[in-house]
Amino acid sequence: MKILVSNDDGIDSAGIQALVKSLREIADVTVVAPHQEQSAVGHAITMQTPLRVFEYHKDGKFFGYAIDGTPADCVKIGIRNLMTEPPDLMVSGINHGSNTAINIIYSGTVSAAREAAIMDVPSIAISVTSHSVKDFSFAAKVAKILALEVHQKGLPKGTMLNVNVPNLPEEEIAGILLTKQGKSKWDDIYEKRVDPYGRNYYWLTGNLVEVDHSLEYDQAAIRNNYVSVTPIHFDLTDYKTFEEMKQWKIENLLNAKAYRDISN
Amino acid sequence: MKILVSNDDGIDSAGIQALVKSLREIADVTVVAPHQEQSAVGHAITMQTPLRVFEYHKDGKFFGYAIDGTPADCVKIGIRNLMTEPPDLMVSGINHGSNTAINIIYSGTVSAAREAAIMDVPSIAISVTSHSVKDFSFAAKVAKILALEVHQKGLPKGTMLNVNVPNLPEEEIAGILLTKQGKSKWDDIYEKRVDPYGRNYYWLTGNLVEVDHSLEYDQAAIRNNYVSVTPIHFDLTDYKTFEEMKQWKIENLLNAKAYRDISN
Repeated sequence: MKILVSNDDGIDSAGIQALVKSLREIADVTVVAPHQEQSAVGHAITMQTPLRVFEYHKDGKFFGYAIDGTPADCVKIGIRNLMTEPPDLMVSGINHGSNTAINIIYSGTVSAAREAAIMDVPSIAISVTSHSVKDFSFAAKVAKILALEVHQKGLPKGTMLNVNVPNLPEEEIAGILLTKQGKSKWDDIYEKRVDPYGRNYYWLTGNLVEVDHSLEYDQAAIRNNYVSVTPIHFDLTDYKTFEEMKQWKIENLLNAKAYRDISN
Repeated sequence: MKILVSNDDGIDSAGIQALVKSLREIADVTVVAPHQEQSAVGHAITMQTPLRVFEYHKDGKFFGYAIDGTPADCVKIGIRNLMTEPPDLMVSGINHGSNTAINIIYSGTVSAAREAAIMDVPSIAISVTSHSVKDFSFAAKVAKILALEVHQKGLPKGTMLNVNVPNLPEEEIAGILLTKQGKSKWDDIYEKRVDPYGRNYYWLTGNLVEVDHSLEYDQAAIRNNYVSVTPIHFDLTDYKTFEEMKQWKIENLLNAKAYRDISN
């Protein structure tokens, strides 16, 4: 099995190194990851500037390619240019911090895996629910188990798995659950400060408002010490609203009468 | 009606100025837009650095707030800090270039509107299908008509409209259609060049592979000269795969037997 690994915390982060160590036990692993941290970049891609590719060595050995771009850039250039053939699987992570509920939208980790799914490569994003993780070994084991499972069972084209692992010793893990993206959202706060020159600036902060209480949602699953596995895709069409909006009859919106109503 | 306007091409672009002019005929408009172009940034948000807010003047008058951040940042700080109360509607655009099919994922224009939808503000993203638009007046009129329509009919919480307008004189427009996100994707090509110092660098380029031929998809609608209106949301759960994956019985994956299979 050939696996492409990327992340958003940067190629020198502890999470990706634990992931690569674990996956190299079962596969031929190519690493293409951002040179620097790229958290919360979402599905950004680099088009205004060219990309550069650096060889990154660790402990005197070639570890992988470092890119001065986003997680999605790494996956694109990895599959298109740096690998001789497309991988059987792409794994993104292990992220320092959970990617559940609304955070899936902002996550570079998830976007790397989503880019692979767009390119018809089955993929997994994996995150641990803390920014100060001491031991990635359990999450790395979960990644390995799920990599084998996805390789054996396959995923529909365009679908990826978003996996979140509680930051707990293995013996305190309650189990593993198939989940849906939760509905919890951020209550954003911009903290206003004044710089030494008298000018205002704003730091984004805030609190996640927990509205997911059923274990069928990712956010509730991890809060209750379960590993959460959510199948996600990139078809954003709201089919329910699509059906409801047929009543709007928007095909008539551009006719002369509608214009007249506006201009008067 | 109070409307918040943002975009990804930057506050001084022709598209946002045409949009604001049109919407000011029907509403009290607040503009909060990136200081500089932010195309293809997806749903990135700024957390590693603080944001700064500048007042932007045009023709000697206050036009709006310019932010040194992403489109999603503009919507967050606009709603949380710069407006005294949340707007009735948020409109993003008018983008220079279409945002259909897979491009919805990468688009800063769509992400600005999606951020508003996340914050429970109904929203519309609007794009014209060319990077060199001479006349935004028809698209600006469409924005105005749809703004009134959405304000009157409402949208479900979390749903936004993604609108694409062909770059054609109004008399050549075939009509307006309710559509789904198309399946067309990019065949990416990284063009390799060598800098004056002998180092390689890569430009992202490529071709959109057109697979959408039914007018029910956004990409086919605009190719056939229709205005396309697609309801999209931010629930990325793949419900079909969720049901199918119940057969995987992943709740058993972490038991002793599964571990043993892996280690042997």
